[in-house]
Amino acid sequence: MSQYLKNHWYVVAQKNELKDQPLARMVMEKPLVIFKGKSNKVGVLDDLCAHRLTPLSLGEIVGDSIQCGYHGWTFDCEGKCVSIPNVKKINNISVFSYPVIEKWGWIFIWMGKPELASQTPLPDFHVIDEEKWVGSGSMLNVSANCDLIRDNLLDLTHAKYTHKQTLATDEVDEVPIIAKKIGNMVSVKRVMKNIKPSPFFAKSVGYKENIIHRQTTEYTPGCNIVIRLRGNSAPGASENKKNGFRVLNAMTPETKTSTHYFWWLGRDYDQNNSELTQWMKDANARTFLEDKVVLEAQQQNMILNPNKNPIPSPMDKGIALAEKLNIELLERETLTPSPKRGVNNAR
Amino acid sequence: MSQYLKNHWYVVAQKNELKDQPLARMVMEKPLVIFKGKSNKVGVLDDLCAHRLTPLSLGEIVGDSIQCGYHGWTFDCEGKCVSIPNVKKINNISVFSYPVIEKWGWIFIWMGKPELASQTPLPDFHVIDEEKWVGSGSMLNVSANCDLIRDNLLDLTHAKYTHKQTLATDEVDEVPIIAKKIGNMVSVKRVMKNIKPSPFFAKSVGYKENIIHRQTTEYTPGCNIVIRLRGNSAPGASENKKNGFRVLNAMTPETKTSTHYFWWLGRDYDQNNSELTQWMKDANARTFLEDKVVLEAQQQNMILNPNKNPIPSPMDKGIALAEKLNIELLERETLTPSPKRGVNNAR
Amino acid sequence: MSQYLKNHWYVVAQKNELKDQPLARMVMEKPLVIFKGKSNKVGVLDDLCAHRLTPLSLGEIVGDSIQCGYHGWTFDCEGKCVSIPNVKKINNISVFSYPVIEKWGWIFIWMGKPELASQTPLPDFHVIDEEKWVGSGSMLNVSANCDLIRDNLLDLTHAKYTHKQTLATDEVDEVPIIAKKIGNMVSVKRVMKNIKPSPFFAKSVGYKENIIHRQTTEYTPGCNIVIRLRGNSAPGASENKKNGFRVLNAMTPETKTSTHYFWWLGRDYDQNNSELTQWMKDANARTFLEDKVVLEAQQQNMILNPNKNPIPSPMDKGIALAEKLNIELLERETLTPSPKRGVNNAR
Repeated sequence: MSQYLKNHWYVVAQKNELKDQPLARMVMEKPLVIFKGKSNKVGVLDDLCAHRLTPLSLGEIVGDSIQCGYHGWTFDCEGKCVSIPNVKKINNISVFSYPVIEKWGWIFIWMGKPELASQTPLPDFHVIDEEKWVGSGSMLNVSANCDLIRDNLLDLTHAKYTHKQTLATDEVDEVPIIAKKIGNMVSVKRVMKNIKPSPFFAKSVGYKENIIHRQTTEYTPGCNIVIRLRGNSAPGASENKKNGFRVLNAMTPETKTSTHYFWWLGRDYDQNNSELTQWMKDANARTFLEDKVVLEAQQQNMILNPNKNPIPSPMDKGIALAEKLNIELLERETLTPSPKRGVNNAR
Repeated sequence: MSQYLKNHWYVVAQKNELKDQPLARMVMEKPLVIFKGKSNKVGVLDDLCAHRLTPLSLGEIVGDSIQCGYHGWTFDCEGKCVSIPNVKKINNISVFSYPVIEKWGWIFIWMGKPELASQTPLPDFHVIDEEKWVGSGSMLNVSANCDLIRDNLLDLTHAKYTHKQTLATDEVDEVPIIAKKIGNMVSVKRVMKNIKPSPFFAKSVGYKENIIHRQTTEYTPGCNIVIRLRGNSAPGASENKKNGFRVLNAMTPETKTSTHYFWWLGRDYDQNNSELTQWMKDANARTFLEDKVVLEAQQQNMILNPNKNPIPSPMDKGIALAEKLNIELLERETLTPSPKRGVNNAR
Repeated sequence: MSQYLKNHWYVVAQKNELKDQPLARMVMEKPLVIFKGKSNKVGVLDDLCAHRLTPLSLGEIVGDSIQCGYHGWTFDCEGKCVSIPNVKKINNISVFSYPVIEKWGWIFIWMGKPELASQTPLPDFHVIDEEKWVGSGSMLNVSANCDLIRDNLLDLTHAKYTHKQTLATDEVDEVPIIAKKIGNMVSVKRVMKNIKPSPFFAKSVGYKENIIHRQTTEYTPGCNIVIRLRGNSAPGASENKKNGFRVLNAMTPETKTSTHYFWWLGRDYDQNNSELTQWMKDANARTFLEDKVVLEAQQQNMILNPNKNPIPSPMDKGIALAEKLNIELLERETLTPSPKRGVNNAR
């Protein structure tokens, strides 16, 4: 189990999870409290009151601050202690706070070196905001390392075996993939020409005849996957449908063996059909539960057999490239001193 | 997590828990069996049959002894094996037994050096027996170190934040405390003059106007807390009520991170009102469940963050004195050889 | 907790557990998958796909092979990989497979040195197949070391204390046993003359008067116990009944502290009475649940008290002989090189 890739933005919560109450969530083995103050500012702090170490998430949101539910110490979004009962002057007491950005209905946090946060872009989930794309998402917790979910999505041949009733097509494990690394992105493509659409495609679009099915899976670190799917009616079909899908996947390590898995599924057609939006969301959630069973069992086997290594297959090329990329990035994280420390060391 | 303070009497059970069946309970990581024989004698033994190590608590009380439920070996209240099937003469087989005293509706045991038991007094819970005081009690198991419960009770400012619907008064975190050590006791006092009574006080007494609210919390090791509360009608009020309460708290370590918490709540007025007694008991039990949530979360945070230290507040003085006292007593326990061994060593 | 005795055949499943789906079961800390192919051949493999370490038990039986439910790799009963999507020539990929024998309604596996499998006989459970004996069996998982179940069965005096409502007789802990080792078998005998039949005997046979009750318990390693019981009407009784029972017990280590316990209970009279067969099976299952409670509590106590040793009793002689036999066999397993390796070493 490798170390965490820290110098990346990770989704910590869905916007709609932040209501009147603070939210407790562990990320990279750190218990965090996430809260949205009255002025809509979001704070992410270590979930640990400076006073007596009680989780702040048991407390209450008071204005733009969070008040501990044990003895009332209060901290603002930057973690600064702003109130202690019976104490006039507070000397520099604080709880560690994390950089945070709210965007696309998700709350992103930064667990890495603080000085690198502002210069690092968010993962590219911009389609959520585009009018052309309509969809919805959710999250689930998976008791498996985030890399195992990444690998699941980088090898879609599993659709045939794990999702027999929904995503399976006969051809998905017959048509080879093209995998390549482009900068800090790994891309895996497959084009299946003139195939019977999967049950999910048939139902969500209404294909009656064969289609050309294009799959592109793009991985970028931290641990994000954008899947672009396209179904066009096959040449010679009497139908003439063209339909695009996007599956956005943001995997945030909870621990080395568990992951908060945030996802969004959108389409570029029939945008006003809210019934279809709901059906697609529900179908996707059920499909991911099938993955969850496999991934958690795989994780357990890996814990029980720490010295067993996978055997590569022709469909694993994207996984191999992603692993290599992660190792490089991890080495860079470990070796590069932070800018500030670099200055200090030079003195 | 410090060691256990052993040379003190601890409550192991409520009298009414000892009926026809033996009771299994772990204290200081030792599984114990507690049973009351036909002649009302109570035995506390290691819950471990000498024969094949089965828990004796699965067996039956036979006369004044306990019979193992596996092969019938039988042990008296002192742990002496008094019967083995098919064996005439039993050579000195026994299970370890603990000194035990039944008093005030509670069963006290001694986990320390046996020769110190008789010279050590019980914690002072005598009000349970006084006619003037009427009340009742119960127990709960809290997955937190007993010191965290002690600290909860030594800083009652938490009433305002943890018990908003019941014990909260606005002034409890504004009025300073007086904390002092008197011999082996730590005392914390607070007098809140002319305040609105807490919901609990208002309901249990019927105050309609302001009161003087006096709180005294007294800690004595092992891990016992006596809280004396008094509510007198404030000067100038048209009412003239004087009401006293006692909350007795006996915390017995189950493990380093869990505690058997025995309590009794009494009052010195309206003594024949059994409905009020029941209401007060139920209200107190609900209140302690609020503490339980906080304490267990605090304990988990302390396990996750072993190097984090609390930051003291002006309301923590009693806690600091109690910690200091415990460290002194623990050192004394560790250094002082037991009298008997002292004699042996001198030979 | 000693090591596993590996060079013996162990029951891993009941025949009727192998249906359309593969079965997952852990033996000696190894997760195994057990499946019966279309031609009735049984395979037992490590439950770990060679590809990405997912449990094969989540997959499907395809012909005489098992297909992984993640990416479709397929393995035959010998563990050989026979199909990988998009791969023409498979180079020697396999999953570890275990020798297996189906007999008497049970599936036996071999966890030891493969070259010793064929020369080692199965435990002797042949009565299951004899027309004279009619019965049925089942299994349960017990969270205790298999030796503790063995010891339970080698000292039947516990019937009086653990099974008060069913197997108890007053005399079982009064009449001495005769224990001896005969080759690799330990035998314990007891004859109780002219006693009141146990509730189980009375109900299953209909004795109204006293009987001679003979018990013989025979232990053979791995961890098998055959109990032969006989109830004959006592001399002088007006009845003249002769009834035999067999209890076959096959204990298979799941871990050092848990066991798959397979059993079969038969009788040599009233063979066509299927109602009686069912009643005996149900009664036995209930009785073993009483043992399960004791055994699991005993195991927990042994974990908590690793340095405590049992104290022997006159009824433990069989247990002592079995322990000695196991130590000898374990030493032999550890010291003796496997034949093949022996040859290699000599070069």
